[in-house]
Amino acid sequence: MQENDFLEFVARQTPAHPRVPVNIGDDMAVVNLFEPAGAGAADPRALLKIDQCLDGVHFDLARHSLTQAGRKAVNRCLSDCAAMACEPAALLLAVTLPHGATAAMAQELFLACRDAAARFDCPLVGGDTAIWPQTEQRLAITVAALGRAAPGVTPVLRSEARVGDLLVVSGALGGSILGHHLDFEPRIELALAVTRAARISAMMDISDGLAQDLPRLCAASSVGARVDGALLPLTPAAHELATSDGKSSVFHGLCDGEDYELLLALAPEQWAKLAPAAAKERGGIRLAGVPLTVIGAVTSEPELVVVDAGQVRPWPRGGWEYQSG
Amino acid sequence: MQENDFLEFVARQTPAHPRVPVNIGDDMAVVNLFEPAGAGAADPRALLKIDQCLDGVHFDLARHSLTQAGRKAVNRCLSDCAAMACEPAALLLAVTLPHGATAAMAQELFLACRDAAARFDCPLVGGDTAIWPQTEQRLAITVAALGRAAPGVTPVLRSEARVGDLLVVSGALGGSILGHHLDFEPRIELALAVTRAARISAMMDISDGLAQDLPRLCAASSVGARVDGALLPLTPAAHELATSDGKSSVFHGLCDGEDYELLLALAPEQWAKLAPAAAKERGGIRLAGVPLTVIGAVTSEPELVVVDAGQVRPWPRGGWEYQSG
Repeated sequence: MQENDFLEFVARQTPAHPRVPVNIGDDMAVVNLFEPAGAGAADPRALLKIDQCLDGVHFDLARHSLTQAGRKAVNRCLSDCAAMACEPAALLLAVTLPHGATAAMAQELFLACRDAAARFDCPLVGGDTAIWPQTEQRLAITVAALGRAAPGVTPVLRSEARVGDLLVVSGALGGSILGHHLDFEPRIELALAVTRAARISAMMDISDGLAQDLPRLCAASSVGARVDGALLPLTPAAHELATSDGKSSVFHGLCDGEDYELLLALAPEQWAKLAPAAAKERGGIRLAGVPLTVIGAVTSEPELVVVDAGQVRPWPRGGWEYQSG
Repeated sequence: MQENDFLEFVARQTPAHPRVPVNIGDDMAVVNLFEPAGAGAADPRALLKIDQCLDGVHFDLARHSLTQAGRKAVNRCLSDCAAMACEPAALLLAVTLPHGATAAMAQELFLACRDAAARFDCPLVGGDTAIWPQTEQRLAITVAALGRAAPGVTPVLRSEARVGDLLVVSGALGGSILGHHLDFEPRIELALAVTRAARISAMMDISDGLAQDLPRLCAASSVGARVDGALLPLTPAAHELATSDGKSSVFHGLCDGEDYELLLALAPEQWAKLAPAAAKERGGIRLAGVPLTVIGAVTSEPELVVVDAGQVRPWPRGGWEYQSG
């Protein structure tokens, strides 16, 4: 089963609904609680997301603690709130514990999730805890988030990138498997700061790796993109992996998943609002304590390309086709 | 691990939050999207619930179809919407498929969930589908519901039952395991009709059986209860089970789980608004096509009792202690 094929099936089989201005396909859905939708900031728009975190897929209980697993599950969902530039308003938690789980395990997981959400003033308001009756069944953590539009901020979609927009990423990319995937920071403050300071055309979080996620933003916006490999901000972990496996650091920055950084598209004049010349001279800008880096631009070509060592190369589909020169 | 002990731990460890007037412990949480909370019907209150449905616990894929499993998962969550007398506004769906699952399986499940929600004009607005990489792992379906207060209807809590209130149940109880648990009807129309016609003190849905759920309502309201076993509306399935296992039909009506009927507490004068004398003469009342039956009353005693064959007996804790005379 191919994930993108199934997502396309779901999109085709999801009819429009008058209370749902943004349906399945973006980082979160946008729902008008009441109809007809009112106008302006008082319009009670709710944003919604659900996400799973599984033992043996997203974490490994043989090596990672329940606290790490719970925090990751919550932070993945909060990263989607950041991607829409909304404030998390409440969280729900469903846990299926392995056979023989103790009350102490359930309690540790609950507290980890509660505390991860509380960092963003987001209350955990409901949950469901079950225990698999069969042995061999593994821990599954499902988190659902209710977001609310922050005052003066309209949710930012994937679908409004425009030709000529700059492509910008937060933080640094690659090598998340070495540890970042368990202790990343949902970019909520950054997302709110950036949307208050400039008009962002499109935004999403990079959860499956830029190689997979940028094509999704481009497809939603019906545009192409050109990324300069030399501009990619890379983590020390990306370089470390490159040293050990012989692939390039740029490969890891593009193709490793679970960065949980933000990918933004915005017009050059909007970028100028964020990046005064002085800041650029100092080698890049920071907002809410997080670096922001221009990595390329939105193009009218249907294809995405990456410029690597001066050569234009096709976009690495999923990662495995990519060969750095 | 005892479910009620864990729920008490969670309640103790859940701090109050200014945006959460009803927190963990009721059928759904109530969240004010914006603060300070406005007054009146325009106040954007969101209701939230999450619930899991597991293969080998809530259904059995060896005997039940994916369509049955998906419909049950959605309807369980919608039953909680009914319990609060709110309208379902949007649903989220997280599915973990067994190893080797096909696209056709994912599609069947999605369509079943979408269609079950659509019956109540409730759009499915987001989801997450994963596949267990290990063999032997089983299907888990998690559904989260966003509800909205219906016009003119305040969400009905568990905690406001008053001494002297009548206890009323919808439909009939018992024997759900013979099939009802897969094809029950969330009592949403009934809940809205009843709350529009009378002031309901307290309400919940009966998901774990009256023997377990009535004590929860009583504990939340700090009251006791007296139920007359002879008044319990029983399903044909409750009688069928009684014939085969030698327990009484009343035992099955009290102790079997998964009725997904409504349990209401309301003052006698409010009941009179629902039940004109003419309707009572015809042997009970119906609202929104569903029978409503008085089964007892709320008392000031801390204990719950059941009257059975003229004798006052202690409440069947969990079911197994109960012996019908």
